[in-house]
Amino acid sequence: MSSELRSRKSETATEAPAQTPTEAESDTKEDIDSEDDKHDLSSKIPSGTNKTPGVLNVILENVPERWRNWTIRGIFTCLLIAVFCLTIYGGPLALMVITLIVQVKCFEEIINIGYTVYRIHGLPWFRSLSWYFLITSNYFFYGESLVDYFGVLISRTDYLRVLVTYHRFFSFCLYCIGFVWFVLSLVHKYYMKQFSLFAWTHVALLIVVTQSYLIIQNIFEGLIWFIVPVSMIVINDIWAYVFGFFFGRTPLIKLSPKKTWEGFIGGGVSTVVFGCFLSYLLCQYQYFICPIEYSEKLGRMTMDCEPSPLFRPQEYMLPESVSPVLRLFGFKKSIHMYPFVLHSLSLSLFSSVIGPFGGFFASGFKRAFKIKDFGDVIPGHGGIMDRFDCQYLMATFVNVYISSFIRSPSPQKLLQQVFTLKPEQQLQLYYSLKETLENQRILSGFE
Amino acid sequence: MSSELRSRKSETATEAPAQTPTEAESDTKEDIDSEDDKHDLSSKIPSGTNKTPGVLNVILENVPERWRNWTIRGIFTCLLIAVFCLTIYGGPLALMVITLIVQVKCFEEIINIGYTVYRIHGLPWFRSLSWYFLITSNYFFYGESLVDYFGVLISRTDYLRVLVTYHRFFSFCLYCIGFVWFVLSLVHKYYMKQFSLFAWTHVALLIVVTQSYLIIQNIFEGLIWFIVPVSMIVINDIWAYVFGFFFGRTPLIKLSPKKTWEGFIGGGVSTVVFGCFLSYLLCQYQYFICPIEYSEKLGRMTMDCEPSPLFRPQEYMLPESVSPVLRLFGFKKSIHMYPFVLHSLSLSLFSSVIGPFGGFFASGFKRAFKIKDFGDVIPGHGGIMDRFDCQYLMATFVNVYISSFIRSPSPQKLLQQVFTLKPEQQLQLYYSLKETLENQRILSGFE
Repeated sequence: MSSELRSRKSETATEAPAQTPTEAESDTKEDIDSEDDKHDLSSKIPSGTNKTPGVLNVILENVPERWRNWTIRGIFTCLLIAVFCLTIYGGPLALMVITLIVQVKCFEEIINIGYTVYRIHGLPWFRSLSWYFLITSNYFFYGESLVDYFGVLISRTDYLRVLVTYHRFFSFCLYCIGFVWFVLSLVHKYYMKQFSLFAWTHVALLIVVTQSYLIIQNIFEGLIWFIVPVSMIVINDIWAYVFGFFFGRTPLIKLSPKKTWEGFIGGGVSTVVFGCFLSYLLCQYQYFICPIEYSEKLGRMTMDCEPSPLFRPQEYMLPESVSPVLRLFGFKKSIHMYPFVLHSLSLSLFSSVIGPFGGFFASGFKRAFKIKDFGDVIPGHGGIMDRFDCQYLMATFVNVYISSFIRSPSPQKLLQQVFTLKPEQQLQLYYSLKETLENQRILSGFE
Repeated sequence: MSSELRSRKSETATEAPAQTPTEAESDTKEDIDSEDDKHDLSSKIPSGTNKTPGVLNVILENVPERWRNWTIRGIFTCLLIAVFCLTIYGGPLALMVITLIVQVKCFEEIINIGYTVYRIHGLPWFRSLSWYFLITSNYFFYGESLVDYFGVLISRTDYLRVLVTYHRFFSFCLYCIGFVWFVLSLVHKYYMKQFSLFAWTHVALLIVVTQSYLIIQNIFEGLIWFIVPVSMIVINDIWAYVFGFFFGRTPLIKLSPKKTWEGFIGGGVSTVVFGCFLSYLLCQYQYFICPIEYSEKLGRMTMDCEPSPLFRPQEYMLPESVSPVLRLFGFKKSIHMYPFVLHSLSLSLFSSVIGPFGGFFASGFKRAFKIKDFGDVIPGHGGIMDRFDCQYLMATFVNVYISSFIRSPSPQKLLQQVFTLKPEQQLQLYYSLKETLENQRILSGFE
């Protein structure tokens, strides 16, 4: 999403007078080259440096400068995709770990920008506090999802059962400790900076931690709910660039002058087509469509299941008005299709219409703070956050979509909840249920 | 909590060089009296003015200046308490409306400070955007609690059922519209300010909207869960002041120089005593202990219930070592007590140990932005937010406490969920339940 920003650094640096909080006292620790640089945060924020790993430098020695960056970017794109595939091969739990790592890196990148913007050298405790809040909120959110999915398993161990039962209470206590710590760390000289960074930390947590919690929930619904949306964003990104490169004429939005309507539409159409294709492919493998569950019978985690109706082919009648036209092309009156493929249309629509706005938002943010990239972890790509800006928005959409249109209360889960009741309450529920079922003639009264 | 800040305005204004984002260009619209004022935001933020309503001014004409503010503060304290009691008389739904009003006022106060800090005159769309996000998040959170508690009732109307089923989806769509609107409203000159205010709005939503959602959940658990914590904070505030006034010697925290250990401890002890007393009193009335529920039988909302064990007196044996001492004072070997009174100890401990930190946080915030109060709505008290700073933290604690230690899955609610299943799933659940109950010999096989 941010590729067109790559070469704008020198341009943006001179655009507007710095509106950032500047202080009277100058930081002598930093080596400031010129007077102008005082206002240019980009020189201090650890943003993309286009640095090249040593090995590649040797290999690419003979490649002209113009193509070198392209090659590096290409190589690392392939590497990223390879890592992505490997993790999928590792299964849901490996993905959960990767999500956690990505989240921590994203948090670090956002927080580092905050440090630089507010020039916090000497602020008491601040690094520790931010990381403390990251750990606390991860404890809360990861805990919630683990309790939700593996509650039965965890409750077996006495020690863990206490953690499960009082999970929210412990999390809140941890948060309160951080809160009190923050208040105690307030120092008269730095009030404003400390509060700003406190807010900054919380916004970062809101963006990164809560949304990666949603990603994990999606993964647990079945790998397909993770792979399809992630690939859609990647595909939309690539094809929007390609279409824009070859056919781009009409500018789309002032914020990103290189984005064009042609790229936007071309990318969108490609995403829809690719989304249908990928969904159709993945629907056929249990590995992708079954949620990971703890099987009482097998005594271990399993990814075998009876596919839900979503992943069983159904017959869809074509509308009368369209069918004669389609029949010319060899189509029949009806088609067999996985219902999931139809749902994938909503996902691809979102990822191609609203998704790019996640990218615009990120480039706006980067320009606001006059940085080129969020970091310099991936050569040719910038920071981790540069690659994941839209993914977070998409993950939230998928999560909401699942909870609104897909997930129905499962008899299995409800039954598990019933068994947590006291025996007499179970009995009470049993009789109420029996009565209602009999009244509705679902159950005959003679049983 | 912020009473000692009331007369510090002139002091704080000269304390430190302004660390706020200042701009090269000065706003000509504003009437700036002196050069110094440029850096002093307090002159622009609508903070407490100690303004007196006209009628009171006439009545208090003969009261010496020194006592006038005290009188006004006292009168409005009584007025606030009266309004509080009246609302409780109005019941849970009236409280819900009041919570909403308070929340909107608090949001307005926080946002207004943001406007002034970032000097947003001319920022496109910003006021509308903040309010739009407030409405969206309220739609989401109020909707969630209404669905949770009155789902059965709401589902009766076809039109509303759609809103209930797809509630999250609609909320997310509304949020996305706001998000896209924000991105489209970005203007090159204002990037940094716009992003800062966007973050500011979200922090305000996090503080105000999410926490008033928790307050409403508490109200629905039974009025006692609302009245006891709110009163505790108020009592702690008052008695900490009184104890500090008469016995205060040892300073507590640099942030609030007038806070003393004597006040902190005295307030804490008073809160514990008062909390026990109030809890004991309220435990005896159904009106305070019964959650509001929709009764299928009566066809209307009701607050009658069989009191939960929490509100039925139980016998507690006194420990052997203590009982001889206590018997001297006329106590018996055991005491009868409502379990809720014991829980109230945790609440009063929290409100007197952690609660004040909410107040310190708020005064730190006010000093950071060099304002006296959050607003000037209540004469003698400042803004609404000045009165509610600790209440929000307390409400979160109560909510977590209820969900960890009090709330157990209710057969009623589970049954409601069972009825949302398809008939064949209900039947499946019925037979599984029957089988398990029979196996455990809770249900005899002959029925």
